[in-house]
Amino acid sequence: MTTIGIMADSDILERFGERVRKLRKKRGWSQEEFAHQCGLDRTYVGGVERGERNIALRNIERIAETLEMTLSQLMGGI
Amino acid sequence: MTTIGIMADSDILERFGERVRKLRKKRGWSQEEFAHQCGLDRTYVGGVERGERNIALRNIERIAETLEMTLSQLMGGI
Repeated sequence: MTTIGIMADSDILERFGERVRKLRKKRGWSQEEFAHQCGLDRTYVGGVERGERNIALRNIERIAETLEMTLSQLMGGI
Repeated sequence: MTTIGIMADSDILERFGERVRKLRKKRGWSQEEFAHQCGLDRTYVGGVERGERNIALRNIERIAETLEMTLSQLMGGI
């Protein structure tokens, strides 16, 4: 409840970034490994995870594919 | 089944655009009314619906809010 509250109050980019970081770590991947699998730059992925990037749909899809999730699942709870 | 097959084969931007158009029409809104409610330009929304725009997360959120859906619901089935 508290967590959901905090998530909902923060910026969408931050919420998405936190979600990606959590899912990446759950899989035991470093930012570098993950970025490589996504075909994205590590610094870009770092920026996404910190909520500094207004990431567009094509890159969101790459992230979902790498995590083997649907877009809907990736967006779950944010 | 056929529809799902077609959806999955087409480009993510097209799938997202079709999804938005369908949800907008379901609510009986014109593109202009919808764009206004989203705080976006009508021509931009038209481009999104045609799959011509690699829409970024902040604008995806505006669309979800206007449709009164979560991001996960908006991304459902695409």
